[in-house]
Amino acid sequence: MLAPGVWGVVATPFTGSALDVDEPSLARLVEHYAALGVAGLTVLGVFGEAARLDTAERRAVLETVLDSVDLPVVVGATGLSTAPVIEDVALAAELAGPRLAGAMVQVNSGDPQVLSRHLAAVHEATGAGLVVQDYPLVSGVRVGPAALAAALSATPGVVAVKAEAPPTTTAIATLTESLDLPVFGGLGGLGLLDELAAGAAGAMTGFSFPEGLLACVEAWRTGGYSAAREAFLPYLPLVNFEQQATVALAIRKECLRRRGLIMDAGVRPPAAALPEALREQLHRHVTAVSTMTEVA
Amino acid sequence: MLAPGVWGVVATPFTGSALDVDEPSLARLVEHYAALGVAGLTVLGVFGEAARLDTAERRAVLETVLDSVDLPVVVGATGLSTAPVIEDVALAAELAGPRLAGAMVQVNSGDPQVLSRHLAAVHEATGAGLVVQDYPLVSGVRVGPAALAAALSATPGVVAVKAEAPPTTTAIATLTESLDLPVFGGLGGLGLLDELAAGAAGAMTGFSFPEGLLACVEAWRTGGYSAAREAFLPYLPLVNFEQQATVALAIRKECLRRRGLIMDAGVRPPAAALPEALREQLHRHVTAVSTMTEVA
Amino acid sequence: MLAPGVWGVVATPFTGSALDVDEPSLARLVEHYAALGVAGLTVLGVFGEAARLDTAERRAVLETVLDSVDLPVVVGATGLSTAPVIEDVALAAELAGPRLAGAMVQVNSGDPQVLSRHLAAVHEATGAGLVVQDYPLVSGVRVGPAALAAALSATPGVVAVKAEAPPTTTAIATLTESLDLPVFGGLGGLGLLDELAAGAAGAMTGFSFPEGLLACVEAWRTGGYSAAREAFLPYLPLVNFEQQATVALAIRKECLRRRGLIMDAGVRPPAAALPEALREQLHRHVTAVSTMTEVA
Amino acid sequence: MLAPGVWGVVATPFTGSALDVDEPSLARLVEHYAALGVAGLTVLGVFGEAARLDTAERRAVLETVLDSVDLPVVVGATGLSTAPVIEDVALAAELAGPRLAGAMVQVNSGDPQVLSRHLAAVHEATGAGLVVQDYPLVSGVRVGPAALAAALSATPGVVAVKAEAPPTTTAIATLTESLDLPVFGGLGGLGLLDELAAGAAGAMTGFSFPEGLLACVEAWRTGGYSAAREAFLPYLPLVNFEQQATVALAIRKECLRRRGLIMDAGVRPPAAALPEALREQLHRHVTAVSTMTEVA
Repeated sequence: MLAPGVWGVVATPFTGSALDVDEPSLARLVEHYAALGVAGLTVLGVFGEAARLDTAERRAVLETVLDSVDLPVVVGATGLSTAPVIEDVALAAELAGPRLAGAMVQVNSGDPQVLSRHLAAVHEATGAGLVVQDYPLVSGVRVGPAALAAALSATPGVVAVKAEAPPTTTAIATLTESLDLPVFGGLGGLGLLDELAAGAAGAMTGFSFPEGLLACVEAWRTGGYSAAREAFLPYLPLVNFEQQATVALAIRKECLRRRGLIMDAGVRPPAAALPEALREQLHRHVTAVSTMTEVA
Repeated sequence: MLAPGVWGVVATPFTGSALDVDEPSLARLVEHYAALGVAGLTVLGVFGEAARLDTAERRAVLETVLDSVDLPVVVGATGLSTAPVIEDVALAAELAGPRLAGAMVQVNSGDPQVLSRHLAAVHEATGAGLVVQDYPLVSGVRVGPAALAAALSATPGVVAVKAEAPPTTTAIATLTESLDLPVFGGLGGLGLLDELAAGAAGAMTGFSFPEGLLACVEAWRTGGYSAAREAFLPYLPLVNFEQQATVALAIRKECLRRRGLIMDAGVRPPAAALPEALREQLHRHVTAVSTMTEVA
Repeated sequence: MLAPGVWGVVATPFTGSALDVDEPSLARLVEHYAALGVAGLTVLGVFGEAARLDTAERRAVLETVLDSVDLPVVVGATGLSTAPVIEDVALAAELAGPRLAGAMVQVNSGDPQVLSRHLAAVHEATGAGLVVQDYPLVSGVRVGPAALAAALSATPGVVAVKAEAPPTTTAIATLTESLDLPVFGGLGGLGLLDELAAGAAGAMTGFSFPEGLLACVEAWRTGGYSAAREAFLPYLPLVNFEQQATVALAIRKECLRRRGLIMDAGVRPPAAALPEALREQLHRHVTAVSTMTEVA
Repeated sequence: MLAPGVWGVVATPFTGSALDVDEPSLARLVEHYAALGVAGLTVLGVFGEAARLDTAERRAVLETVLDSVDLPVVVGATGLSTAPVIEDVALAAELAGPRLAGAMVQVNSGDPQVLSRHLAAVHEATGAGLVVQDYPLVSGVRVGPAALAAALSATPGVVAVKAEAPPTTTAIATLTESLDLPVFGGLGGLGLLDELAAGAAGAMTGFSFPEGLLACVEAWRTGGYSAAREAFLPYLPLVNFEQQATVALAIRKECLRRRGLIMDAGVRPPAAALPEALREQLHRHVTAVSTMTEVA
């Protein structure tokens, strides 16, 4: 089973107008995560723009992360069919070895049997534990929580679920009630308080201030709702600002840049660039969070 | 032009298992809005379940609101074609008379010319000012902010825009830059801080604690970002909890019920009922907001 | 149960640039249907642009049809919630009396219980038999064939199903196997041959040459696949041409106009007008069908 | 520019329950295409299940095709971002050399500038001519014909367009009017007659009887509409049967199997398997086509 807590979903920084992978920035970013004490890192996920990297770049990103920190990693696989997913997961297993805490695999069908067979085949072929990501906005696949629970209860090798099909609170409640698996919220932390209340084991997302996710999850564990609410409040306006449709990635990378964690904020097309109209408000939010939390 | 500030989007309370319209609860609810000092009320909108009422019920809802308070009203029209929209708006104009601040009409086409002709025909036939609602989740119609601005700049009779096509911040920035019209945010207040920063004239939405919307908008006017942020923070966890896909309406009505503003929390199918799994967290949120803000 | 065979889905003709309802054309159109010997007429459906008519127009359309021919009618209801559907069906029952063969009601939920309660309430309130239309492109609601069969097997008052959720062939096979109800294909006849093979009771659609639907269904009954195929072949190129996304309605009305069945081909916005680029090919198709089948 | 006529979109046959790539069947299939005299072959497209193959399998498929026949090939690239598309196209260029008539690249953005830059970068990096595929059902990207034409008129290296965004007829009319590029229809031939009338240079699709596509396109060239209609009629019922949502691929592969062109009809999940309910009708259609056209 995946360790509970906060898993940092790692952005892939690019440099200049050529948008080459910026390995020094990537190293700095994951070192920041390590210093914060996250449970682990999620690499080559949607927020890591894995689908916009070629094979050599995906390899370089993973190697840079593995060389920079000692944290366990979850590595994302792109695609919805068994053969290419096995190819991705096998590469991750080869590079990460025992540090591979899980391979993140998308829900690929609304039919529990098809999904279960897919997951079982990936696990059998690679030996990797699987983090099953239910993210219809990206996959285009819709499976209800009941069907997802049915599929997973019949499948060996699953070590966690990442629940990103709204409403995530009811999904997490259903999944945690019927499965003995840790379930993580994502979506930038937009529903983190409610996901924890529904039984989530933590957060696995790319919010630009993972300090806020850590504070919230830790406060929940020790002080319940009131403590978690208080801990998370200073971050919530930025959480909502970041998690805007189509521009979320560009906003987050600019926040990371302002924090000095990466050098450039570029995103690869067809992802949308940061609209100029949002720049001033972004600055206000980042300043407010930094001030109120004394996080630079 | 529609007055800036907060326009309360009024729920339609139902009573018992028969789900009949509960006029006394409706009167109590809008009296609460009036006591708070909102700019006006929006009646028979999506959150008011207008599409689930028959003609007599729609008439009764509007009459009850008009009889209970003295506020100006925006009245929603259901449908995307000119003839039935004119029918709805004409009824609203007849019942509300000079208190009709505007008729809320959906964006019905991605083609600026088609949209402009539709709006012009509705205005010409009824004389009513139009609040143009861009809400693709409900209408199924997608028009970009640039095309929407083009359509509205060529159309007489428009008195406001309700921008609910994410990302709303960039949409509002585009619309306020190119149009001399007040633009309101909706979506439960999820992006209110950012919408105000983008130039929004206020909020027009159904959040169960309109006190929070009022505090935020007023603080923005007098103290800018920092004040608005501070004023809105205590409400933000509930805003996010409420604005969950598919269950938002059931959550809001239960919050209104807990506040004593309506008697029953029922929603008409096919709207989803409140999942039991959310009840405890709803209680926590409402209690926290009530405590932190001393709002009952 | 609804009589098997071909039910003509009636267009609502409009006249001139004002797009007023053209009652003489409507009368001529349904008289043509009656002369062909269709099983009945479906009025105020999606193809009849019911959602673009106001209340008085809907009443006038239905009255004109009832006054012009003696055929039984299925009358469509707009909306997905019980109260407005009951209002529509009650009006249809009042106007059509014993000639109301059924009220066409949309699938309003993917949850069989919600759907079943909705249908039962409409039937109980109005006494009307129900033709359940599964048309996700218009309703936005997706229910699988198994869930639909489950809902309908538990619901009194249903007299037929109109299956328009692709793939319709497998849906019709599932529905006819588990329900003792006639199931009709729609979608302009695009899959009629295959829907008949799957057990369909006939076609309920608005193809501009209902002669072709009648020939196909009759041939299927007497001569099976080969006969139906041969009978339908001359019409198939026009069927495919007509059933194009977004422009289907404009094409059909222009075909009806060329046949002399209606005077003008206008459609009400936001429906798309006929693209000029399609006019010549439309002429070719209509001429070819007329020639090959000796139908004017 | 790509040669006009029929480009056969090649299925990837799989063998047995392991669903390994069946290279002998693939060789037989493309030899059949070559014997028919198609203009060329499209390999590793959507119908070729390229997204369900791993890197070694994609290479093997392309090599088998190149070794089996002398036809020019268009090779599909999976993905919507520049780096992975360049990786795919570079491999295709390396393997196919001068026989690479074009690389098929998806429309990746509704923004003409983003699309144009993407295409230009792929062309510049690989030297390959580009066949731009507009297929929103698969890509999830919507660009109107006008925006697409704008993007392509500004982009070097484009050799053809594959128009699969319905209504394809009006799209093809717009594209052929404003661009000096061959535009091909797809979608199984469902609209072939009308696409030719709109100016299409031919068909690029995977219909199981490419004989029908060839007959239609050739007849159009020599005899216009009437000849093409007559030539295509015997195939049209099967065209419509094949082009059913979700099950199209399974139907086509079973048709190819019945024709003896491939050994097994398996598709890789999550593609849907052939529903048993369709098997008898499939047999009828294949028999009828074979009989009427004397094609085995």
